[in-house]
Amino acid sequence: MEAPQSPTTTAAEGKLCEDFAVPSYVEEVKRRMAEFAERHGAAGRRVVLITSGGTKVPLESRTVRFLDNFSSGRRGASSAEYFLDSGYAVIFLHRHRSLYPYTRLYSGINLLDALRSEPEGGRVVVDESALPRITPVLKRYQAVREAGLLLPVEFSTLSEYLHLLKAAAQALSSIGPKAMFYLAAAVSDFYIPASEMPEHKIQSSNGPLQISMKMVPKMLSPLVKNWAPQAFVISFKLETDPSILLERARRALETYKHQVVVANVLDTRRGYVVVVTRDDQHELVLTDEEEQKQVEIEEKIVSNLSASHGQFMGQQR
Amino acid sequence: MEAPQSPTTTAAEGKLCEDFAVPSYVEEVKRRMAEFAERHGAAGRRVVLITSGGTKVPLESRTVRFLDNFSSGRRGASSAEYFLDSGYAVIFLHRHRSLYPYTRLYSGINLLDALRSEPEGGRVVVDESALPRITPVLKRYQAVREAGLLLPVEFSTLSEYLHLLKAAAQALSSIGPKAMFYLAAAVSDFYIPASEMPEHKIQSSNGPLQISMKMVPKMLSPLVKNWAPQAFVISFKLETDPSILLERARRALETYKHQVVVANVLDTRRGYVVVVTRDDQHELVLTDEEEQKQVEIEEKIVSNLSASHGQFMGQQR
Repeated sequence: MEAPQSPTTTAAEGKLCEDFAVPSYVEEVKRRMAEFAERHGAAGRRVVLITSGGTKVPLESRTVRFLDNFSSGRRGASSAEYFLDSGYAVIFLHRHRSLYPYTRLYSGINLLDALRSEPEGGRVVVDESALPRITPVLKRYQAVREAGLLLPVEFSTLSEYLHLLKAAAQALSSIGPKAMFYLAAAVSDFYIPASEMPEHKIQSSNGPLQISMKMVPKMLSPLVKNWAPQAFVISFKLETDPSILLERARRALETYKHQVVVANVLDTRRGYVVVVTRDDQHELVLTDEEEQKQVEIEEKIVSNLSASHGQFMGQQR
Repeated sequence: MEAPQSPTTTAAEGKLCEDFAVPSYVEEVKRRMAEFAERHGAAGRRVVLITSGGTKVPLESRTVRFLDNFSSGRRGASSAEYFLDSGYAVIFLHRHRSLYPYTRLYSGINLLDALRSEPEGGRVVVDESALPRITPVLKRYQAVREAGLLLPVEFSTLSEYLHLLKAAAQALSSIGPKAMFYLAAAVSDFYIPASEMPEHKIQSSNGPLQISMKMVPKMLSPLVKNWAPQAFVISFKLETDPSILLERARRALETYKHQVVVANVLDTRRGYVVVVTRDDQHELVLTDEEEQKQVEIEEKIVSNLSASHGQFMGQQR
């Protein structure tokens, strides 16, 4: 019988080193994130690290099959826009090919359906009826890019995600309470350690498949305790069963001792969330009128959290 | 002990009905595919059904987690272009958001990085250095669209894929040997029947995860025997271990009695394939010079298969 492991920093960090190989580029990305945080911190700006999209968990070393989590990255990408509007600089740690700020507005559109060649002059122009609001959106996107306010970082696998999150937390520690972590990615709870993974594609001729997966170490614990102890940290809790949601959210706050859990249910996540803190819980809802006007719930989430972050920074002084 | 099931038509078709609910829109899509095949068949055109991309296999009814197969859809999307160039009409049965013919050439590019607003006139134009060859590509895309030569059909889950493949096979049966099936999708070999699936998100607090998956019924068998018995059928075999590749390819031909297996190895799949038929095997390789010129292996695959399809049609007369 194995001894039960409490989610202490050492256990989670130990597992990270043991079972997940460090991608070669992590140090370089960490340096860029640290430089980004220092530059904006020095300018008096808050910095939010947003994680977004699902993680890929390989079932074979030379991967043909993998486990994934449902997530388009919509919440992370739209939240990034509202954080930028609220004056934050944003590190956008997202799954490769998941939705991206601003560009997400056109994600369902085939690029070639939105272009036409001019008969004269030979230029290719955008059909603006196919890309609604393209002029102001492009302007905003370019302004953000020129001001250097958005740093995109990509991951695909769970292992990449975990190491980049650690690097980001350490990179942001220099700006103390000005840093916010907005952990909206849909991270797998399960994985197969490299040592237990078959090298080659699993053969279907061997019959039905039994998969045995270990639990992913909870990085929130070392993040809050060791890597970025002064930061304002928000995690997300997604459930399909509303009856267990708030209890799970409260339990997460007690276990990891961070500041906020944004709790939501799969079916209603675009119109209803509960912002849970140690002493409080606050429902955010889109009214029918707001839904008709295409107001997004992320605007309310970001507004709520930005205010709490301000109070939090005041208390740390 | 269960009796061993041979891959007879009845067994595979039975499983399809039992374990995979029919999506409501299948009949409508089938009608459109049949109309497409008849129109082009009547014009003397061959029709290829290309399947492309990976299938999603849910682990929960209200799905948060799923199993997926590695596939960008690159091979299917580029092959579609070469089939169109060879005079085929194409039904493109592809995974939602996988690569798409022509548009695939710009898949790594953020749309908003490729546009600029004109200072005067207020129009938005394409920066052609960001979208190489956009003018001829757009022209070709529009010509294909205007001629009605490409019918896109989307799937996400394994279940959708299986039912749409069956519908496509039945829809194409009316044009007999003029129909080609080019089954390049990366279809899961394993699934969890709806009856054995938990309704809600699997809780990580319950400890490590054991997943038990059944084998997906092999649709190639009823496709060749019952649904489209006169068609020219190509399946793909992807392995990571080169030493077992050709034996697996030959075994597939013997089991399913179709015409061709295109065999390839994960690491070298963009530059080397073996086209395996009952009496022959033919290697297709990109030379260094061709790779430098960005020739694609799919051009050679399609040219080879198009010729064999012509011979096949001759023999059926």
